[in-house]
This record gives sequence, structure tokens and C-alpha cells, in this order.
Amino acid sequence: MEGKLIAIGRIETPYGSLDECPRNVDPDGPPCELILDPPYEKALEGLGPGDRVLILYWFEGADRSRLTQHRHGGGPLRGTFALRSPHRPNPIAAAALPIVSIEGNRIVVRGMDCLDGTPLLDIKPA
Amino acid sequence: MEGKLIAIGRIETPYGSLDECPRNVDPDGPPCELILDPPYEKALEGLGPGDRVLILYWFEGADRSRLTQHRHGGGPLRGTFALRSPHRPNPIAAAALPIVSIEGNRIVVRGMDCLDGTPLLDIKPA
Repeated sequence: MEGKLIAIGRIETPYGSLDECPRNVDPDGPPCELILDPPYEKALEGLGPGDRVLILYWFEGADRSRLTQHRHGGGPLRGTFALRSPHRPNPIAAAALPIVSIEGNRIVVRGMDCLDGTPLLDIKPA
Repeated sequence: MEGKLIAIGRIETPYGSLDECPRNVDPDGPPCELILDPPYEKALEGLGPGDRVLILYWFEGADRSRLTQHRHGGGPLRGTFALRSPHRPNPIAAAALPIVSIEGNRIVVRGMDCLDGTPLLDIKPA
């Protein structure tokens, strides 16, 4: 399989360290921006405020070898595929959230759970 | 960004050509199997029948340059991010479905929309 990902943009969040990141997305959380690299702006045509989208992004620095791990905060050892941990063979994160607004290449949503500067991979109807 | 994906297994579906593939996932569709490469079986610990999972997979052969396109069957030109088309910059597909059963490294779900043999990327709680 030839599976090389490209960043289509970056995600702006209030979180500069992993300790600050919330454990899950939250539609009532603080505003965050998906900032597309300019060539991709035209690929937003047809999306608007209120549309629920699935946002895919990339956890840089993940440990891709973990097959079992503890849930954050403890508990029994569980399989990686039973958890939403960033540490997984393909560290692709997914968030389903409504669009708050779009201005040019900037899409505002609320309550992303990732570091500021996280690479954005895809946006699609949820 | 260093984003190289690995296949964690393959998806068995009844579809040998793109023309046969349904346009969307369908929880009442035919049985399909997610077959994990053996090392990943232990990463399923904690998942069982009835659990709803987000399945990520890879559309091989996608045209990754399309920024606008027509919905299958026609209609106006729309942005790629407003569509679920396989032709997108990062052709990662997502299906949220309940697990029917798990036996060893084989997970049965219903109604995947992809070709037989499609590379599997991730499974996580939906």
C-alpha cells in the first residue's frame, strides 16, 4: 500500500501542550480554526455554517507501536482499537462537529481536542 | 509532516469492481469482514458485538488532485470537502457501524461501501 498523507492545512487551538488538550471534542468548547492551505479553499464550495463535518487530523509524535494501553487516568489495560488514544498504528484523529462559520480558507468550529498547529488531513460531510 | 500510513489489515466485501460498490455505508447491508494482520489482534481487547466503531480505510487508486467535482450521478460542481467522494487529497474513508461479531482477528460488520481487499487503517470507538 502506498499511503503517503499530505497536510491540507493546520488547526489553530488554544492548546500549546498535551497536558492542556481536552480528552475529547466538545461542540460547546472554545472556538478553533481549521486553516486550509490556499489552494484548497475552492474545495469548500457547498459547505456552510451549521453543516456537520467529519474532520480528520494527524497526531504528530504518536507512539505507533502500542497495541494495548491504559485509558488516560488509569483503569485496566485495553486494546488500542477500543480507545481513542492518539497512540495507535495510524494516528489519524476524527472529530464530528458543526461548522460555526467560514471565511475564505478559515473554518471556525468549537471544541477541538488537539495541539495548536496540528496538521489537517480531510473534511467531509459527517 | 511525516505521514506514512500502514495497512493494519484488509476489508472483505462482496464488491470486485467500483461499479458494484454502494454509494454509502448501510448498517443493514451485506456482511463484510475486517481482517486484521495477526499482530493487531490483541489491539481489539475490550471491543465486542454491538459496539459502534469508526472504521478508517484507504481508497487506493483515488485521484488526489480533485478540488471540485460532481456528485455521483450528476448535479452541480461542488467542493471535494462537501462530498464523500473517494477522490480527495487524502483518500481516507470513514464508516461508523456496529460490530456484529468478532472471532480472533476477524470482525464482522454490515454494509461497507468499498472494494474487496481495501486496506484497513484504523478502528476506534465511534
